[in-house]
This record gives sequence, structure tokens and C-alpha cells, in this order.
Amino acid sequence: MKTLFKNADILLYENGIYNVLQNAYLAVDGDKISYIGKDEPKESFDTVKDMSDKLMMSGFYNCHNHCPMVLLRGVGSDLPLNEWLFDKVFPIEDKLTAEEIEAGTLLALLEMLAGGTVSFSDMYFEPQVTAKAVADAGMKANLTRPVQSFDPSEEPQDSFRIAQSLELYNEWNNAADGRILIDFSIHAEYTCTEKIARAYIEECNKRNGLLHIHLSETVKEHNECKEKYGKTPAEWFNNLGAFDSRAFAAHCVTVEDSDMEIFLNKGVHVVHNPSSNMKLGSGFARIPKMLDMGINVALGTDGAASNNNLDMLEEIHLASIIHNGYMQNATVMKADTVIKMATQNGAVLQGRNDCGDIKVGNRADIIAISLDKPHLRPIIDEKALITYSAQSSDVYMTMVDGKVLYENGEYKTLDQEKIYYSVEKAMQKLY
Amino acid sequence: MKTLFKNADILLYENGIYNVLQNAYLAVDGDKISYIGKDEPKESFDTVKDMSDKLMMSGFYNCHNHCPMVLLRGVGSDLPLNEWLFDKVFPIEDKLTAEEIEAGTLLALLEMLAGGTVSFSDMYFEPQVTAKAVADAGMKANLTRPVQSFDPSEEPQDSFRIAQSLELYNEWNNAADGRILIDFSIHAEYTCTEKIARAYIEECNKRNGLLHIHLSETVKEHNECKEKYGKTPAEWFNNLGAFDSRAFAAHCVTVEDSDMEIFLNKGVHVVHNPSSNMKLGSGFARIPKMLDMGINVALGTDGAASNNNLDMLEEIHLASIIHNGYMQNATVMKADTVIKMATQNGAVLQGRNDCGDIKVGNRADIIAISLDKPHLRPIIDEKALITYSAQSSDVYMTMVDGKVLYENGEYKTLDQEKIYYSVEKAMQKLY
Repeated sequence: MKTLFKNADILLYENGIYNVLQNAYLAVDGDKISYIGKDEPKESFDTVKDMSDKLMMSGFYNCHNHCPMVLLRGVGSDLPLNEWLFDKVFPIEDKLTAEEIEAGTLLALLEMLAGGTVSFSDMYFEPQVTAKAVADAGMKANLTRPVQSFDPSEEPQDSFRIAQSLELYNEWNNAADGRILIDFSIHAEYTCTEKIARAYIEECNKRNGLLHIHLSETVKEHNECKEKYGKTPAEWFNNLGAFDSRAFAAHCVTVEDSDMEIFLNKGVHVVHNPSSNMKLGSGFARIPKMLDMGINVALGTDGAASNNNLDMLEEIHLASIIHNGYMQNATVMKADTVIKMATQNGAVLQGRNDCGDIKVGNRADIIAISLDKPHLRPIIDEKALITYSAQSSDVYMTMVDGKVLYENGEYKTLDQEKIYYSVEKAMQKLY
Repeated sequence: MKTLFKNADILLYENGIYNVLQNAYLAVDGDKISYIGKDEPKESFDTVKDMSDKLMMSGFYNCHNHCPMVLLRGVGSDLPLNEWLFDKVFPIEDKLTAEEIEAGTLLALLEMLAGGTVSFSDMYFEPQVTAKAVADAGMKANLTRPVQSFDPSEEPQDSFRIAQSLELYNEWNNAADGRILIDFSIHAEYTCTEKIARAYIEECNKRNGLLHIHLSETVKEHNECKEKYGKTPAEWFNNLGAFDSRAFAAHCVTVEDSDMEIFLNKGVHVVHNPSSNMKLGSGFARIPKMLDMGINVALGTDGAASNNNLDMLEEIHLASIIHNGYMQNATVMKADTVIKMATQNGAVLQGRNDCGDIKVGNRADIIAISLDKPHLRPIIDEKALITYSAQSSDVYMTMVDGKVLYENGEYKTLDQEKIYYSVEKAMQKLY
């Protein structure tokens, strides 16, 4: 399958900044970008698409999510954190079976595709269900079965979570032409005993695995860890060898300078989740400092229960402005920085090194943003429009590995009506 | 003209909170809401509209804007504040004539109507042009010709700005069936001499006018005023009698406790502009404290040059989450609070006491939000969906004084294509 896009403005990363190549051609051959340029390529194409008034750019990599939690969107909003979690979220999660998780996952895929997300990193139970949905939908995902252990007497060989995680890895890693990668996950320091964590990390490192963790999301979590272990959560994980293979840490709101040094030295990636950190009152991760140090920082939505959507353009917007406000300096975060966080940095974090950037030879994970609505006029600076003015409904097309999965409100691989029906059915069971 | 909406979910304010009346009828007779209820009204209607899967609520009141600045959307993004203002914004503004201001205003009206804004408070030059556009479009606005004076020798009788402001008032106040109200405006303390301010305030107070000002937007402005006058900007204005009639102050980022006492005692309204305050690095206005004290706080976008859009749902979202993050408490701002800020509080600020709330006898300033997109499913808590999940493209219909001005992507009173053409023409002159 060969596709040619014509009359396109194309956002290209060159010499450390993004530039727009205007009114150009972009060709896709199979799952890869085969041509970018001002001259019309001479070959023949199966499809030619007119991209007038549209900006083509890399799709978004949502690097911290709990997909099926869309089923809890808006539940217990405005309650204090503990009340929300223990009285509202956990009792509903207890009722979830594979059937509801499938419905929730599919709803999340609809939302993500419509908002230009091509790949996501997820952490939830029943991940086989999510893997199958992603494979069928044509998207990309780094999936995990997170490990937790509260019982100090639990032995690694008795942990069904470790067993499920390894089973998932064996069954699904590199599936669907490599679109699905299986990561490892310890939910967080405060939800796992040292014994279980250590044994599981060994399994992860043996496989050169990528470890997905929550880290220092709140002051409470951070300080309680220091009281318990005399170590910050980052030090605790590092001490257990968690950063010896590959790893990424979500939130990192309350990390200390010495934790950032660990990230830098060990190549730990950080995921910034501004909506969730603001909404839950967690606070401001020191993202500008981490970026300055050279730590790879990506963006994520977190689950829709604490966001309450999976909208990467909203995270881009928040990441671009809240740090300016917090540091009282209009130049702290720039459009170039946050666009790169949402695309290239995310792909690098996921271990997808031929993704996240529009260039010849890379995977064709491409979105087109329509610039025809009043809030995107006049077109003076397309980078600024994406960062500060756009909304996810401006995404016109989402392509993954050369296949159009969403275009002009239509899903090519997902049945929206059927998914809504399954979600309604799930609601009746859960609420 | 009598319109009946059926199968509608309707957001009603009752006993201090919002509740949704589900699957109900809402009738509009002329410019007023004539019926709300579960039973179908017996009379006949000119139009019946099915509102299945939609939430009807009050339209938004954008209480601080500089409409024509949409023409500067994205200009000089990411530059330091002074460089942005002096090297980029001012030179372009110098070239603006009535023709470009008309094009910019009309583009802003397109954007606002599509995002559910029914009324706005504006501060810009050539306001007659804006007044005519608003009158023709069918929207509401509180307009001003802001007064500035940098020359200490300028006498009030020589101020063309005072003259223009009074002329605007005489010509347009209460025009278009009261949809257009003319306010008074001193741009800010730092852009006006005491002599001119005092004389102009006298004119405002004589007319029981509503004064629109910028106040304590930045630390620099606030501290320089204290150095110059030994007074905070709020004290300076209060001392000149600026709060003796009616007044509202935009930004208020760096106001002190004693300033808030002045607001409370004098009935000064505050406009919160979270996007602009974050993007420009101004900081966090202490909105939760002002609300607790009982000060009337509304929401505004500020101009699109520093936002970079006129999206009230985005301001609602930001106002609902950033203070939680800043104060590290998930319960600081609630959906009820911010929805009221964007609607009722704004209408009260504008002196439109029969607006901003869906109830029988009030003006029919109504929007319908479509709940059919994946990011708004499942429908568990409609207040939370509006506040935390929605985007302005979810606005399906905008009605002002009983007339539908926007519906399902179509404008009833504005010619989008013609406006885009005028904007392109303006661009060629300005850039």
C-alpha cells in the first residue's frame, strides 16, 4: 500500500528545532515514510490525499495511562484524594472483569485515536485483553501487568502477579509486527514489598526489560518512603537494581536533586502528567530542571479517572504553560520542547527508535491537524497553534504504521456504536 | 418566535449547587426562557429541537478580552514578556485600522460562538467597530474605549481617549435591545496619570458606570506602583474613587490581603485569566481565597495574543485544576464553583442580572453541549464532564436572547468565508 499526501504543511525536526515545510508532498510505502519534499514524486500511488489547510506531524505517544479507567471518568470528582480512591475507585475496580476491561479499553482507543495518539504505555490488570484490542485496532502500545505485594510473607514464587507479568511477556512481546511491546511494572514503592520487587526486577533485567513505575507522585508517598527505608523512592528502586536495565517513572512530582542525578546517570526516563498532578493536588514536577539536565521527559495523561480525559493536546498545552506560571517566567517552556516531549521523547522512552519523528525511513505514525477552525486562524506560527490554541477535535487523521485508523470522524478498525453499547452494559454492572 | 427543546438534560442551579434535570423540556418565548420541566408543554411552537445526548446549560460570559488581538495569535510566542510586547505586539498594533479591527473582531466572534460564549467584556480601541459587529452578530458584549495617558502635562479636556469613551457611551450604551452595554475603562495604573484617571473616574461615577481595569497582573507592576505612590494598585484606584460606582479588575495575580478587603467592601468584581497568567509567567491569582471571602470572581480568556485562544471551556478546566496543584489539595476548586464563575458570576459582573442561569423568566442565553464523543463517555457526572473532560468543539448550539446563532458547525448571522477572506487581507497588511 502506497499513499501520497499532497499540499501538506509538514512539521519536521531539524537541528534541534521544528520547522514547517510548507505545501509539500509526503509519501508512505507500507509502514514507512518513503518521501518528503516539495517536488511531486514520480511513482504511482494507491491513494492520493489532499492535505490542504492541514498540518502533518508525528502522532502522539501517551507514555502513562491506565486505559480501562475511562469507565471511572468523573467518578467522585472533587473528593479528597483518599476518599476518592478508597470509597469510590477501588470498590468499582473490584467489580471489573475481562468483559468490562475490554469495553473500557476500546472506548479509550476511540478517544486516543480521535486525539492523535498513535501509541501509549499502559499499566492495568487483564492486559491480555488490552493487547488484543490494540492489535486489532492497529495502534501501538507498551503494556504491562503491574506487580504489587502488600503481604511481607509473600514469596516471589507465589506471586500470581509476577507469573502473569512473565506470561504476558512471553505471549505478547513484539506481537502485531512489533506494535505491541510488553514492559515490566512495579506499581510503586508503597504498594510492593522489597522481597517481591527485588525478585521481579531480576526477571525484568534478565530480559533487558523496560520497567514502568509510579514514582514520588505525592509528598506523602515520598516522605513515608524516606521514613520507612531511609531512602527516597528513587533511591529505593535504584538500590534494588530497578534502573540497571531500562526504566521510566511516571509523575516524579516530589523528586529531589539527588534523585534527578540518579535518573540522568541511569538513563531513567520521566513521564510528566500535568492534568493529573494538578487535579489531584499533587503539585508541580520540576520538569524544566530535568529537561535542562538532559533527562528524557515524555508526556502522559494518566488514567481518565484522574484527568479526566486522554487528550495529549491538552497535556501539551498544560505542560507548556503551568511551569511558566509556577516559575514566574514566560520562557521556561517552549512550543518546541513540549511538542518533542509528546512525540520523539515518548517514542524513545518506549524503545521505538524509528518512531516519533517525521523523516524518511521512519515508521509512518502520522497525524494531520486541520487548521480550518476560527481558533486556529490566522496561521502565523503553526507550532504555537498546536501548542497553545488547538484542541484534540482538530485532529483530522491518525495513521499508524502506514495505515489510516481514524479520518474525519470515522474509525477504520473500531466499531464505535458497538463499543458504546458494551460500555453501557459495563455501566449497568459497575454502578 | 417560540422554540421547544425536548429530550434535553438541563443544568440547573438550585440551593447553591448545580443539578441535572434529565430528559426534560425547555421552552423559549421571544428572548426569554418560558418553561422548564419534565412534562411536555401544551402550547404550540414555531420550532421543536431534539436535544438527545446533549446537555443544555447557560452560555459562557467571557469577562476579560481584547477581541481584535486574535490577529496576533501566536506572534512572538515563547519570547520574554517585554520583548514580546515591545518588539512584536506593539509594532503590529500600530498598523491596525478600523478595517483590520473589524476583521479581527468578526474572527473572534466566530471563535467565541463556536465555543459557547454568549457575552464578553472587551477592552480595545476602535470599539464602535466591535459594537457594530456584535450588534449584527446577535451576541452580547460590554465594550469600552480604554483610557491611557503617559504625559503628565495632558489635561482631561485634551484627552481624546476620554472623549472617545464618552462618545462611545452616548452612542452605544444599551443598544441592540440592551445586548450592548458600554463600560468605562482605565487600562491600568501604570499606563495612566493620576490626573487623567481622576477626571475620567468622575465621568464614570456620574453615570453609575462599570469600570474595567487591569490590576496587579505582575509582581513588577504591583511593586513599581507601591514604590511610586506608596500604595498598591488597588489602593491607588480606590483612593481615586474608582470603586465608588461599579468596577471589575482583571488578573489580580499579586493582590494583597488588604486589596481583597477593598474588593469585598467596595463590591469590586474580579476576573480570573488562568491561561494568560500561566503562559506569560505572571503566576497564580489567589482565587480560592477571594471566593471564600465572598468576592464575585468571573472568568476571562484575555486576548488571544497571550492565551492563545478564546476558549472558555479551557479556562474552566484550568481554573478547576491549577489551584489544586498550587495549594496541593484536590478539593480547592470544584466543578460547581468554576461553572458558576463562567456563567452566573460573569453575568452579574456585566450587570446582566437576568442572565447566566437557566431559569424561567431569564434571558435565553443557552448552549447545548453534545455528549456523544468518546472523551465524554460514559456519562456518569455531567458537571465533571463539562469541567474536566469537554473541549469547546463539543458545543453543539449557542443561543443568545432566544436566537440560535451557531448550530452544528453553522453560523446563522456570520459569514465565515467572508471573514476568513478579510483576515487574510489584514494579514497581508500587518505582516
